Amino acid sequence: MKILISNDDGIESRGIYELTKALKEIADVTVVAPLTEQSAVGHAITMKIPLRVTKHYKNGEFFGYAVTGTPADCIKIGMRNIIKFTPDLVVSGINHGSNTAINIIYSGTVSAAREAAIMDVPSIAISVTDHHPKHFEYACKVVKELALKVAEKGLKNGTMLNVNVPDLPEKDIAGVLITTQGKSKWDDIYEERVDPYGNNYYWLTGNLTEVDNHLGTDQFAIRNKYVSVTPIHFDLSDYETLEEMKNWNIEHENIIKEKI
Amino acid sequence: MKILISNDDGIESRGIYELTKALKEIADVTVVAPLTEQSAVGHAITMKIPLRVTKHYKNGEFFGYAVTGTPADCIKIGMRNIIKFTPDLVVSGINHGSNTAINIIYSGTVSAAREAAIMDVPSIAISVTDHHPKHFEYACKVVKELALKVAEKGLKNGTMLNVNVPDLPEKDIAGVLITTQGKSKWDDIYEERVDPYGNNYYWLTGNLTEVDNHLGTDQFAIRNKYVSVTPIHFDLSDYETLEEMKNWNIEHENIIKEKI
Repeated sequence: MKILISNDDGIESRGIYELTKALKEIADVTVVAPLTEQSAVGHAITMKIPLRVTKHYKNGEFFGYAVTGTPADCIKIGMRNIIKFTPDLVVSGINHGSNTAINIIYSGTVSAAREAAIMDVPSIAISVTDHHPKHFEYACKVVKELALKVAEKGLKNGTMLNVNVPDLPEKDIAGVLITTQGKSKWDDIYEERVDPYGNNYYWLTGNLTEVDNHLGTDQFAIRNKYVSVTPIHFDLSDYETLEEMKNWNIEHENIIKEKI
Repeated sequence: MKILISNDDGIESRGIYELTKALKEIADVTVVAPLTEQSAVGHAITMKIPLRVTKHYKNGEFFGYAVTGTPADCIKIGMRNIIKFTPDLVVSGINHGSNTAINIIYSGTVSAAREAAIMDVPSIAISVTDHHPKHFEYACKVVKELALKVAEKGLKNGTMLNVNVPDLPEKDIAGVLITTQGKSKWDDIYEERVDPYGNNYYWLTGNLTEVDNHLGTDQFAIRNKYVSVTPIHFDLSDYETLEEMKNWNIEHENIIKEKI
């Protein structure tokens, strides 16, 4: 099995190091990751400035390729110009901090995996729930099991798995649940401050509110010490609203010549 | 009606100027837009550096607020700290270039509208299909009609409208269709070049391939000179795969103490 690895915390983060070490036990791996931290970049891609790619070493040994771009850039250029073949699987992570509910939209970690899904390559995004995680062991165990399961079962084109693992030792993990994306979202607060020159500036802070108490969501799973595995896709069409809108009477044909 | 306006081409672009002029005919508007171009930033938000907000003037008159961040930042800070109330509608655009099919994922224009939808405010993203558009008149007409229609009918929380208008004079527009997100995607090419110092760098280019010939998609509509109106949402859960995965036997309970 050939696996392409990326993340959004950057090639120097502990999470990608632990992930790479674990996946080497079951596959040939190549790391293509952002040179610098790219948290919350969403599905940004770099079009207006060129990208640079450099070889990156850890402990004197070649570790992978560092890209001066976003997680989605890493997957695109990784497949097109670095490995130059289609891997069996892309894995993004291990992210420091959970990517559940609305954070799936903002997450660079998820966008790397989603970019792979767009390119019809099965993919997994994996996160540990604390921003300063202490426990990568169970996440590594889960991702190896899921990688082998995806290889066995396949994933339909355009679908990826978003996995969140509580930051706990294995003995305290309650189990594994297949979940849906939760509805929790941020109650944003912009802290207003004044710089040394008398000008205002704003820091984004906030709390994740409207916590999902619904059994079956990603948020509910991790709050209850379960690993959460959510299949997600990128068909954003809202079919229910589409049907309702048929009654809005906005569709029409202009009186023109050449028709379809 | 109170409307908050943003975009991703930046506060100086022609599209946001035309949009603002048009919407002033039917509503009180406030513009909060990126200071600089933010195309293809996806749903990036700014967390690691602070934001600045400045008043922006056009032709000596106050036009709106410029934010040193992304389109999603503009909506968040716009609602929380600038207008400080919940508008009736958010409109993002008029984008220079279409936002159909997979581009919905990459688009900053769409992410501004989606951020509003996340905040339970009805929203519309509007684009004209050419990167150097000549015709804003019909897009302005359509967005006014849709704004009034959304005010009348409502949109369920979390759903927005993604609108694409062919870059044509009104007499050549074929009509208006309600559509789904198309399946077309990019065949990426990274052009490799050498800088004056002998180092390689890469420019992203490519073509939108796998064109949707399916009647009913956004791509099909605009290719046939129709305005495309697509309702989209941000529940990314893939319910079909979720059901299939129930047979993967990955769900389990660890043998531990405290249960839910």
